[in-house]
Amino acid sequence: MDLLKRRIQTDGLILDNSLLKVDSFLNQQIDPELMMKIGEEFVRRFEGEAINKILTIESSGIAISVMTGLLLKVPVIFARKKKPKVASDDVYTAKVYSYTKQESNTIMVSKQFLQKDDNVLIIDDFLANGEAAAGLANIVRQAGANVVGIGIVIEKSFQPGAQKLTDAGYRVESLARIKSFTNGQADFL
Amino acid sequence: MDLLKRRIQTDGLILDNSLLKVDSFLNQQIDPELMMKIGEEFVRRFEGEAINKILTIESSGIAISVMTGLLLKVPVIFARKKKPKVASDDVYTAKVYSYTKQESNTIMVSKQFLQKDDNVLIIDDFLANGEAAAGLANIVRQAGANVVGIGIVIEKSFQPGAQKLTDAGYRVESLARIKSFTNGQADFL
Repeated sequence: MDLLKRRIQTDGLILDNSLLKVDSFLNQQIDPELMMKIGEEFVRRFEGEAINKILTIESSGIAISVMTGLLLKVPVIFARKKKPKVASDDVYTAKVYSYTKQESNTIMVSKQFLQKDDNVLIIDDFLANGEAAAGLANIVRQAGANVVGIGIVIEKSFQPGAQKLTDAGYRVESLARIKSFTNGQADFL
Repeated sequence: MDLLKRRIQTDGLILDNSLLKVDSFLNQQIDPELMMKIGEEFVRRFEGEAINKILTIESSGIAISVMTGLLLKVPVIFARKKKPKVASDDVYTAKVYSYTKQESNTIMVSKQFLQKDDNVLIIDDFLANGEAAAGLANIVRQAGANVVGIGIVIEKSFQPGAQKLTDAGYRVESLARIKSFTNGQADFL
């Protein structure tokens, strides 16, 4: 997706040749028209699949997911990162370790929003170690539902997430795949 | 906005005649087509205003804001609820008290995304005591920018937020205004 790659090159901020910040169009300021283009590309990549729900995680997955959901005419569910105050039988939970923040979070989805005949497209903004996507897939499986695939905006291909998810049998479609950072620039696969 | 009011009547869950949960189309599961209709209504209500940015707050404000931003072709900024780990000169912050959770949160926006010549539309899902909207307006003012107005999906008109914001000089446009809850039903103004 050339439009996205160009945007990463022009507006992404690369720190220490390892961390990519895209706060200006995806992670704090959002460009809605780019989000729609990303939605269109997810629809194209997963064409022919009988997707009836999209599952993402707050907050940065929401904008891309609602555009995709608008085009597919399916509801979007977002997992919350906050642990429920009281343990509840009404929610699915999964543990997600953040290597960036070096802390483990519990993500949760109300059971009422996932049924066993659902065909779920998982969407997220970044894929690095694959922890968030694996946690979302875990929740879909707890509901007995089917993971159609995993749509990612930016994949850091030099980290193990994409391979781990592919090895686990999931179809991963990443719109921009970064093989390395060199001299403050992203090199794409 | 009759479509929204009907949806609140059919799918909203009213607890103890005081708490309204709309998790099935706005707060955890999102109906993207309804979000687009809400965006269209905000555009209609603020027609003629020179809005160049939308400011909202994670997570439930994002979906409605990106639809509005798509129609207006303007960027959406979302305030984060997490306090920065180190105090920073690069962010605007405001304190927001949550009566529901009985705790005070700091919301923050990177300074780079708000300039003094901006005309900002503030959007949020709920308006009760007005704390979140007032905090967002406070951040816009810290940047020296102009608050064009405040667009709200569901206003609990029996709580003081709308009046407080109006008294402070802000134009508040709420798409569904609830005057009371009776026998598990919402009564609209």
